[in-house]
Amino acid sequence: MKDPNTLGAVEAVRAMAAGTLTSERLVLACLERIHARDPEVLAWAHLDPALALSEARERDRERSEGRLRGALHGLPIGVKDIIDTATLPTEYGTPIYRGHRPVADAACVVAAREQGGVVLGKTVSTELANRHPAITRNPHNLAHTPGGSSSGSAAAVADHMVPLAFATQTGGSLVRPAAYCGVAGFKPTYNSINGAGIKLLAPSLDTVGVYGRDVPDASLFAAALIGFVPPSFDRPAAPPRIALYRTPQWSLAEPSMVEAFEAMPSRLSAAGAAVQELALPPAMDAIIDASNIVNDYETRRSLAYERVYHLPQLSPTLGGKLVQAGRWTRDQYLEALRTVADCRRMLEDGLRGVDVLVTPSAEGEAPRGLENVGKTAFHQMWTMLHVPSVAVPVFTGPSGLPMGVQVIAARGQDVRALQAAHWIQQVLRG
Amino acid sequence: MKDPNTLGAVEAVRAMAAGTLTSERLVLACLERIHARDPEVLAWAHLDPALALSEARERDRERSEGRLRGALHGLPIGVKDIIDTATLPTEYGTPIYRGHRPVADAACVVAAREQGGVVLGKTVSTELANRHPAITRNPHNLAHTPGGSSSGSAAAVADHMVPLAFATQTGGSLVRPAAYCGVAGFKPTYNSINGAGIKLLAPSLDTVGVYGRDVPDASLFAAALIGFVPPSFDRPAAPPRIALYRTPQWSLAEPSMVEAFEAMPSRLSAAGAAVQELALPPAMDAIIDASNIVNDYETRRSLAYERVYHLPQLSPTLGGKLVQAGRWTRDQYLEALRTVADCRRMLEDGLRGVDVLVTPSAEGEAPRGLENVGKTAFHQMWTMLHVPSVAVPVFTGPSGLPMGVQVIAARGQDVRALQAAHWIQQVLRG
Repeated sequence: MKDPNTLGAVEAVRAMAAGTLTSERLVLACLERIHARDPEVLAWAHLDPALALSEARERDRERSEGRLRGALHGLPIGVKDIIDTATLPTEYGTPIYRGHRPVADAACVVAAREQGGVVLGKTVSTELANRHPAITRNPHNLAHTPGGSSSGSAAAVADHMVPLAFATQTGGSLVRPAAYCGVAGFKPTYNSINGAGIKLLAPSLDTVGVYGRDVPDASLFAAALIGFVPPSFDRPAAPPRIALYRTPQWSLAEPSMVEAFEAMPSRLSAAGAAVQELALPPAMDAIIDASNIVNDYETRRSLAYERVYHLPQLSPTLGGKLVQAGRWTRDQYLEALRTVADCRRMLEDGLRGVDVLVTPSAEGEAPRGLENVGKTAFHQMWTMLHVPSVAVPVFTGPSGLPMGVQVIAARGQDVRALQAAHWIQQVLRG
Repeated sequence: MKDPNTLGAVEAVRAMAAGTLTSERLVLACLERIHARDPEVLAWAHLDPALALSEARERDRERSEGRLRGALHGLPIGVKDIIDTATLPTEYGTPIYRGHRPVADAACVVAAREQGGVVLGKTVSTELANRHPAITRNPHNLAHTPGGSSSGSAAAVADHMVPLAFATQTGGSLVRPAAYCGVAGFKPTYNSINGAGIKLLAPSLDTVGVYGRDVPDASLFAAALIGFVPPSFDRPAAPPRIALYRTPQWSLAEPSMVEAFEAMPSRLSAAGAAVQELALPPAMDAIIDASNIVNDYETRRSLAYERVYHLPQLSPTLGGKLVQAGRWTRDQYLEALRTVADCRRMLEDGLRGVDVLVTPSAEGEAPRGLENVGKTAFHQMWTMLHVPSVAVPVFTGPSGLPMGVQVIAARGQDVRALQAAHWIQQVLRG
């Protein structure tokens, strides 16, 4: 048998059901991996091994009595440190909240525990889930960024420290680290996983999602939290109808991504998919500026306490962004929201007749250096449009790091996005 | 000069500018009024008189140095106790959070202080801003409910304990207490006042708003927080084009409300308004069930921590609601959201050609007894539709208690709603 920490969530669930693995042993293997690797990867912000092991033993006891809580029974889970936990500190990635211990668990943490999940620890977030980088490194190459803001969650899942982790996205905070670290990232339809007890940034954008090592793992986790029936990945699904979309910011894609993306359609067609180019109206391009205005305007207001009382403790990047965002007027903000509403309708119309849209999950490989968490160009519009997006690693870049695509469906079509993403990954990975 | 605590916000601002009033004297007068009346009205959850006075003196010092913070400079403000304050306890109306002291101020509290406001204290909320009643009484008649959930804020403003207060609405929590206590309540367009640091209930519905003693006062407060130019109320505005709307639940209106509402159009027409009946498509009636499903579904998830870990400390009303809400599936929820989107478009179409819609702000007067916070029938749909609503007291009911109407405009037309509400109140109050 493989080392337990290298098992995916679906494999681990099967092993626990078969009696060949306990939650305690799984948690212990994860903790050992963290002990060995985290001094270099730096994915974890807070750990309480005794607490995690005691939760795991309790899940094992429940199992032995035939009392299974739900689909996540016994699975260790990483929790991004902008998500409140009453049992572990929550510092939102900033010294402003050093040592902060929330009074309650966030709703999504309660939901995970209700389904049997074991909170392994808190994963590193960039400063207030914004763009100032955190200490975490890309486990595939420690000289490269893991992306942000869900840096620790993506690195921990990629490095076999935990099978599942929470991530959040306001700009590209979930999809970009998934792309850079080569894990499956699932940003569900907006407001599918409840945000109570999570540090608010831009309420029209903030979306909670999950990481797993592959699509079935991410699907298992999200389905348990959201309450949908996860698709079966055991039998091959019918080939999806795919629309390729280069986004209004295609010029920012790196040559390696352009090349890989251009070579993709013939491989998908050969496997039976109906592939077409998606032509959205030129008016759609306005989504880029509009979503930036919404993000700026709302984040400035959400982080009023930090801006007004703790500006010197913010990074110049974030402090500057919050101050400069004061230039947007309410009228400009309301106009941006109207543009967004128009773009949502355009996308809905554009997706009629296809199952999913496929677009790059980042501009290329994870950049070298830790100071740059990467571009938001390929993410922000999909956050703003509230559509489900599944990021899957399908290419390898010139430095040997993963690159991937996002598989996007219409709002509420989360299962369709997951099924197609899995199909596409199987085809492209061979 | 009147007792300072009886001054409205606009009057108090003028008196402070003229040098005939200080913030300290105003705060002191409010504290004296609270001392005299609150043992009976029970509007306040937490007070720290020394802290409020010291904030007021600091505002006075700033004024003497020519440093005015903003439009609220020196004005005392009541903060509903589901809104976080780091300087005062925040108990969310439930013993679960007894003595809780948040780590940061909510964004709206920071915004009020940035504009010069003085936090006078925390006002009583019903349990977790839901329907289980609080201890607060209606200041017009202590045997009657003030409505909920913003019970303390409405009662305190009505009883001259504070000129301005924060309220929130998920069902009818802002408009109903405004109606029952006879204050001006302003629920702005959804997401106009940032919700960071406020206890989340149903994120698709939760809306932060304000109370003042009349429309110009509420307008002053909201404009400072939201950043729009408040309309001038000094000169009479042009008569608005008004559409009367009885809502799909008109049968729940009490005879006194029906009579007052039926007599209203001729008085508005006589004053120069163009008045018509609003006929919305019958499909609009689906908004009632749809918004109930959205509220149930989302609140169950937001209050997961309280439901899972503290069920015995919840009232049977709220505990039962949270448990029963588990019956709604994700598909039913997504279907309800689609219905809501359709209804928003129907309302937008229906409002073309008129400035505002006028509808009752409650079924009638505040019911006798404290156990019943009143019906949500006349509020929930407007919260769900995200439109601005201004509640103004314009009638007197059979028990001598205030009754009122809501003046509603299209999304983003907050100024129009405020102007028309003031015009309508002036006409009907004669």
